[in-house]
Amino acid sequence: MKFSANSVWENKDKYDVVVIGAGHAGCEAALACARLGFQTVVFTVSVDSIALMPCNPNIGGSSKGHLVRELDALGGEMGKVIDRTFIQSKMLNKSKGPAVHSLRAQADKANYSRTMRRVLENQERLDIRQQEVVRILTEDNQVTGVQTYSGAVYRCRAVILCTGTYLKARCIYGDVSSHTGPNGLQAANYLTDCLKDELGIKMYRFKTGTPARVDKNSIDFSKMEEQFGDERVVPFSFTTNPDDVQIDQASCWLTYTNEETHRIIRDNLDRSPLYSGMIEGTGPRYCPSIEDKVVKFADKKRHQVFIEPEGLETNEMYIGGMSSSLPEDVQYEMYRSVPGLEHVKIVRNAYAIEYDCIDARQLKPTLEFRNISGLFSGGQFNGSSGYEEAAAQGLIAGINTARKLQRKDGIILDRSEAYIGVLIDDLVTKESHEPYRMMTSRAEYRLLLRQDNADQRLTKIGHEIGLISDERYNRLLMKIECINEEIERVSHVHVGTSDNVQDLLKKYESTPLNSGISLTELIRRPELSYQALESIDQGRPEFPADLKEEIENQIDINIKYDGYIKRQLRQVEQFKKMEKKKIPEDIDYDAIQSLRIEAIQKLKEYRPVSIGQASRISGVSPADISVLLIYLGGK
Amino acid sequence: MKFSANSVWENKDKYDVVVIGAGHAGCEAALACARLGFQTVVFTVSVDSIALMPCNPNIGGSSKGHLVRELDALGGEMGKVIDRTFIQSKMLNKSKGPAVHSLRAQADKANYSRTMRRVLENQERLDIRQQEVVRILTEDNQVTGVQTYSGAVYRCRAVILCTGTYLKARCIYGDVSSHTGPNGLQAANYLTDCLKDELGIKMYRFKTGTPARVDKNSIDFSKMEEQFGDERVVPFSFTTNPDDVQIDQASCWLTYTNEETHRIIRDNLDRSPLYSGMIEGTGPRYCPSIEDKVVKFADKKRHQVFIEPEGLETNEMYIGGMSSSLPEDVQYEMYRSVPGLEHVKIVRNAYAIEYDCIDARQLKPTLEFRNISGLFSGGQFNGSSGYEEAAAQGLIAGINTARKLQRKDGIILDRSEAYIGVLIDDLVTKESHEPYRMMTSRAEYRLLLRQDNADQRLTKIGHEIGLISDERYNRLLMKIECINEEIERVSHVHVGTSDNVQDLLKKYESTPLNSGISLTELIRRPELSYQALESIDQGRPEFPADLKEEIENQIDINIKYDGYIKRQLRQVEQFKKMEKKKIPEDIDYDAIQSLRIEAIQKLKEYRPVSIGQASRISGVSPADISVLLIYLGGK
Repeated sequence: MKFSANSVWENKDKYDVVVIGAGHAGCEAALACARLGFQTVVFTVSVDSIALMPCNPNIGGSSKGHLVRELDALGGEMGKVIDRTFIQSKMLNKSKGPAVHSLRAQADKANYSRTMRRVLENQERLDIRQQEVVRILTEDNQVTGVQTYSGAVYRCRAVILCTGTYLKARCIYGDVSSHTGPNGLQAANYLTDCLKDELGIKMYRFKTGTPARVDKNSIDFSKMEEQFGDERVVPFSFTTNPDDVQIDQASCWLTYTNEETHRIIRDNLDRSPLYSGMIEGTGPRYCPSIEDKVVKFADKKRHQVFIEPEGLETNEMYIGGMSSSLPEDVQYEMYRSVPGLEHVKIVRNAYAIEYDCIDARQLKPTLEFRNISGLFSGGQFNGSSGYEEAAAQGLIAGINTARKLQRKDGIILDRSEAYIGVLIDDLVTKESHEPYRMMTSRAEYRLLLRQDNADQRLTKIGHEIGLISDERYNRLLMKIECINEEIERVSHVHVGTSDNVQDLLKKYESTPLNSGISLTELIRRPELSYQALESIDQGRPEFPADLKEEIENQIDINIKYDGYIKRQLRQVEQFKKMEKKKIPEDIDYDAIQSLRIEAIQKLKEYRPVSIGQASRISGVSPADISVLLIYLGGK
Repeated sequence: MKFSANSVWENKDKYDVVVIGAGHAGCEAALACARLGFQTVVFTVSVDSIALMPCNPNIGGSSKGHLVRELDALGGEMGKVIDRTFIQSKMLNKSKGPAVHSLRAQADKANYSRTMRRVLENQERLDIRQQEVVRILTEDNQVTGVQTYSGAVYRCRAVILCTGTYLKARCIYGDVSSHTGPNGLQAANYLTDCLKDELGIKMYRFKTGTPARVDKNSIDFSKMEEQFGDERVVPFSFTTNPDDVQIDQASCWLTYTNEETHRIIRDNLDRSPLYSGMIEGTGPRYCPSIEDKVVKFADKKRHQVFIEPEGLETNEMYIGGMSSSLPEDVQYEMYRSVPGLEHVKIVRNAYAIEYDCIDARQLKPTLEFRNISGLFSGGQFNGSSGYEEAAAQGLIAGINTARKLQRKDGIILDRSEAYIGVLIDDLVTKESHEPYRMMTSRAEYRLLLRQDNADQRLTKIGHEIGLISDERYNRLLMKIECINEEIERVSHVHVGTSDNVQDLLKKYESTPLNSGISLTELIRRPELSYQALESIDQGRPEFPADLKEEIENQIDINIKYDGYIKRQLRQVEQFKKMEKKKIPEDIDYDAIQSLRIEAIQKLKEYRPVSIGQASRISGVSPADISVLLIYLGGK
């Protein structure tokens, strides 16, 4: 589909930055640019669908919770908005180590969307425009503007593509398909051709899917297990006072598929568009449809099904774990085979959605296109999946767009600094044939990249960028000081074999003392904690009330995992050495003797910014890296 | 466009009634059917757009306020929902007589939509389904079900068409058009062909339009006149306690077009799709676009422009009075020529929308299709314009659908009973080539059909239908008793020339008394009122607090306008005689001698239910009516 407006005209409003799309990536990108001083306009096909969650009604979860807290520490918005609009919250994996603790909150979708929209509307220097962008205008490989469906040209200095799943979107279930974006919204049908044909961008076609939404009144909850939120909720944003998130929480519900469900699915697999070939795109491996699960894990007798409210102001419920593109009649049969859903009424069908996105290896780690100056991208357009992955990229794309206009170096978080670093490094370095999803296992240094210390890792960077106020940064410094001083203090506090000490140890089923020991030693015991020792530790300072929980938690984690942390810090040192060995942008790989031809090709294609990044490119061997190191060292 | 689903299957959910569309008509129709005991499903292309206001952000206004109060008295929902979601309210035309007083409230659009959606979601026997209906299924001219885009067949006993502006909708401005429904939502592209080709329904193509939505932060309000709501707000619904609607109200703003605005429009008329022929549909005469106004009232130097908030949770503002389908660049120029809008930022463009609707003369006054049993319709599909006109028809269509299933006679309000009666009588009797809009001037008996007495006129009918509870009806009877007793009482209370009487008259600049006079006589004086005489009337009873305002108001109006009311009641008596002369459904017009051929043709086409309706058909002369009367009288 090629767009040609009959009448082209130039809009007189002056913008530095155009953001295309107002989903989770676009919102963060636009806010970052406007907050960093640039006149910004964000285009959306529907102002009513800003920050829409077209799939699961929650934010965070394993490793995604990390992304949100990191984004918050850098000055992003998602954490603040979910803190104001969540209806249930849980810290996942609490029985495991703190590295994999992950916060997840159920969102009131509609409230999340309108709250984020209010933030955008009230942001100085940021305009919202309902219009489809159909062309990116460039001169000499430099972005100069965009053109909309209406023929209007908006001049600008940079463009951020955050088109999500809207590009040439097609929704499919059974043999029914329609050319719409998520949830029946308008697709964006024209931009792909410009990107491919005019800008030479290589496009992929991915797919994802969503389960049905059903009527709460048609569910028999007595056959399900009620799932409650945490008793004490931890906010996402480091700016949210923990007392403000202790709300009356909504419940979710757990039920299971069964062999009858699986039989229905198997019997109808031939009618699935995935198997009939109607769907071309590749789906997310780690977020499979129920039919994928039934096929791939044929021996599993049941799968979990989470029934989650879509919000407080609606009776629609989300059937987590059962996304599908099976025909409508099979959807009814399959859902109604699940205990509690025997008489369920479907409000919106499950469907798969196909969309155009890019091979993100065309991007620099700043998320700028290597070959088009001023063109940045973030979110599902870059081949990722997930609201949090999208928001994180949107923020980085926004920050780096602003920095380019400020003539500053781009912000590149490395794999030892943040999950965001891992996410972007993976996207721009590794080939992927399916939507990329964040996972804790992807982070080599995950003992350091905890959700609980995201502020300590990244607030400084957010402050330097200009998205974190002095006040907030100073508050963090004070917090860190409290933590460090207290860790130091307790290492010097020794307790003996007095009754109250022994009684406390008994209470926690901890081995009694034979002689004196430091508090640090006691805190290291798994069954004890910094908090548990309060009654035998007279010298405790008073921490600021709203930071007390966080500070105590940090003291505990830092003491308990001290050994592991130190070991990982040494690994990071090694890693950093390679990351710091920058490769000049104008390096001539052809001139380097002893590099293998495959390595030369790959290095020329990716143009890695550092030896570290080069070493992660598939097709570049350790021997090639040695050659490179010698070449660069010798220069 | 013809729809053919590859796989057709039968949905097992049992429904009596299918409602197609969940706009203002569809919501009322579906609620009425469910409340009257029938399993009902309402189909919508977007569950997120239930009860959407795609144009002006207000409910009510001249004569439309009447419709809402009548609908409320019959047991409809619109009045209750706007009472819960309005942000400003005004009784219009207060300087004129009570017949033309009309209530209008600014709505928080998003809140109105989600509040109505909650009502639907929580209504027993009512399901909401996001799906496009593509076919009406019939057997022997009797509705048997519908088929959706997904191929699903839903069996039912009746269908109510409330498709609004969605059928084959096309949005247009300048030379830009897209095949979408209002506000970029999905159009319904398939149903028209079924209606035309399979059911033989004659379709029209109408158009309407909407102005741009702009960013509040870009408006200079200092150049406009602030418009406040009433100090004492009157609720729409007779069930709402007046104390509950005394809220902090939002402001609207008044500004004007000027000769520069008009020059810009005139200079660009050739680029308007209306004038270039790109738009086929006919627009609403009484709700013209700004370009229509400039052309038709070429001597007017300026037109009013009302800047109205779209809600409390958004910065979008509606530019009332400047709907347009001019090209985007002209829209910017034209809006920015208006004082206060010099730097206005457009969020959503103005556009015209074309859609398929019917010639409502194919309907009985019950809103059932004459030739298809069980097929009803309401709202813009019937060729009307306006949310209130739609809701009123939706309610009547819903009621009559239920009554058909109950094997009861349909409810037909006549022109002397309600604006709703006038609206429907006009729609089904008079040919119209443009969207029909309610106006007070269309009501012959408007002194009787006041908004203030809608409850007294119609609650009894609503109660008989089953939509008004005994409690509510008894409350009304009590109210009427209070009014009548008090009118009777004051007619017997005489006051003399005492000082406190003369002082009171002086205070109201009313002629002093020379001798004794009844309170009734004093109330009749224009400068006085029932309420004004409280201090000289010791025998006043205590009315229930929440009804006091209404009761006192009724006493005052009934006494003041007694003469006019009695005269109009006599006219109504004449009118009723003709309405009561029913024409048998099986009448053979061909067999009636002396009827002119044109009359026979028209009467056979319309099949009027009464002599009254027959007399209003264009082409049926008074002489034909005499012939008919004699024929029927003689039978």
